[in-house]
Amino acid sequence: MAVRPVETPDAAGRNDGPREDARLLSLDELRVRLRAVGEERYHHQHPFHLMMHEGRLTRGQLQAWALNRYYYQSIIPIKDAIILSRGFDPAFRRAWRKRVIDHDGDTVISRATSNATSNNETNNNEGGIKRWLKLAEATGLNADYVRAGKGILPATRFAVNEYLNIVRSRTLLEAVASSLTEMFSRDLITLRMEKLRQHYPWLAGGLDYFEARLTQAPEDAAFAVNYVYENANTRVEQELAIQALRDKCDILWAQLDALYFAYVQPGWPPPGAFRIEKVEA
Amino acid sequence: MAVRPVETPDAAGRNDGPREDARLLSLDELRVRLRAVGEERYHHQHPFHLMMHEGRLTRGQLQAWALNRYYYQSIIPIKDAIILSRGFDPAFRRAWRKRVIDHDGDTVISRATSNATSNNETNNNEGGIKRWLKLAEATGLNADYVRAGKGILPATRFAVNEYLNIVRSRTLLEAVASSLTEMFSRDLITLRMEKLRQHYPWLAGGLDYFEARLTQAPEDAAFAVNYVYENANTRVEQELAIQALRDKCDILWAQLDALYFAYVQPGWPPPGAFRIEKVEA
Repeated sequence: MAVRPVETPDAAGRNDGPREDARLLSLDELRVRLRAVGEERYHHQHPFHLMMHEGRLTRGQLQAWALNRYYYQSIIPIKDAIILSRGFDPAFRRAWRKRVIDHDGDTVISRATSNATSNNETNNNEGGIKRWLKLAEATGLNADYVRAGKGILPATRFAVNEYLNIVRSRTLLEAVASSLTEMFSRDLITLRMEKLRQHYPWLAGGLDYFEARLTQAPEDAAFAVNYVYENANTRVEQELAIQALRDKCDILWAQLDALYFAYVQPGWPPPGAFRIEKVEA
Repeated sequence: MAVRPVETPDAAGRNDGPREDARLLSLDELRVRLRAVGEERYHHQHPFHLMMHEGRLTRGQLQAWALNRYYYQSIIPIKDAIILSRGFDPAFRRAWRKRVIDHDGDTVISRATSNATSNNETNNNEGGIKRWLKLAEATGLNADYVRAGKGILPATRFAVNEYLNIVRSRTLLEAVASSLTEMFSRDLITLRMEKLRQHYPWLAGGLDYFEARLTQAPEDAAFAVNYVYENANTRVEQELAIQALRDKCDILWAQLDALYFAYVQPGWPPPGAFRIEKVEA
């Protein structure tokens, strides 16, 4: 059993709302506040990830992870299309649409030019969703089963759908800010790729998703931090943006809680969800 | 540690979608199918409830339950107002608005007549949300803390918000059908009141909520079952209604999973959530 590493004894943060102090944060101060949210709440510290990185997950548990996280991956371009639909500035939309392409791929173009391009370039255009399916296949899951969404934990759906609720119902500023977990993802992905290769070498062929995110995520985060700084005109708006990042962290954390509960300890997937086969690798 | 009582080895149900068989179900057949969903998925079988009914929850765990379930209670009239807003038939709205009143209360009327009515009649009008607050207070929580929503598990919010997503985004038929867990609630509440009085006598003063639901829920369920039968004109629509009930059961179940994970085993509330005080009753 993993020991939970983080203890946050009070309810500081959630629902605190805007602070009394009305002074606008500088760009550096804003970055410090956002990074503090990551330190407290980003899922790099979640026990399920610690087990993963220590090589203590079974193949079945990695299947459950890949299956459930597929639902998250599959809604990312929908989430970004909602944000696109809410941006009135063409320059903003031109910058943001990259995210839809990163995840959905660009196979029409890559097919048309595939004779002239290397395999590597073609692969770069297949998109994050297809790359995540390759990871799921590397765990031994059937791609059609994963794509159909059968067996995904209801708690995964509820957490992920909340991401859609946030980008639909809050301000565009908060919707953009909710993407800022990408500020923290490069370090986590770098560590994860090393640990997956070390502990689960049979997964090594399925890591294209993470490889691509190593460059995509920092670009996206840099744009979003600047956007939040330039478009939050009051301290109240800055605090709402910080809260949106906190809420997004909760969405990621809750997905791992649900995996841990269903597939590690006590190990109780709800009625209808994916069950790990008895014979384990 | 509670042994999980239900084992459903396959993913039957979730995402199965409408069946091939196109024959319309009779009212009795529809009831049988709905009751089968309850047998498989309603939260009466959840280990957290089993512990509650066996007297094995601490006061702190009951506080966590009352606090989190308050969020569910607080959105019920919002959920019903969304359904009201989608009903084009005045007769439907006249029938459905009872639910909003049941939960929000009718204190204006009860105050005006309170001199002439018994305390009992006044109490009947305070509404389900206020009654749930009294239950939370009986566990030792401060009502303002509960009402403010601080410390509620993110997973509770995500599951409950999905109920709002369902009644907003699906057909009115499915929105109505998602309320059909009330078909099963009378038996659960009857058992719960007996067990709470037996094992946690200090809670006995906080049980008005359940007392009121013993008559409200069966009335509401009878109306909703008939509505679904009369308004589902094809087997496909009947199956969508049954799926809506399945999804609603998943919403209830996931709330108890989250409580169990955070406050029973392994006992890891996420950053920012309510923590049980070290000294336990």
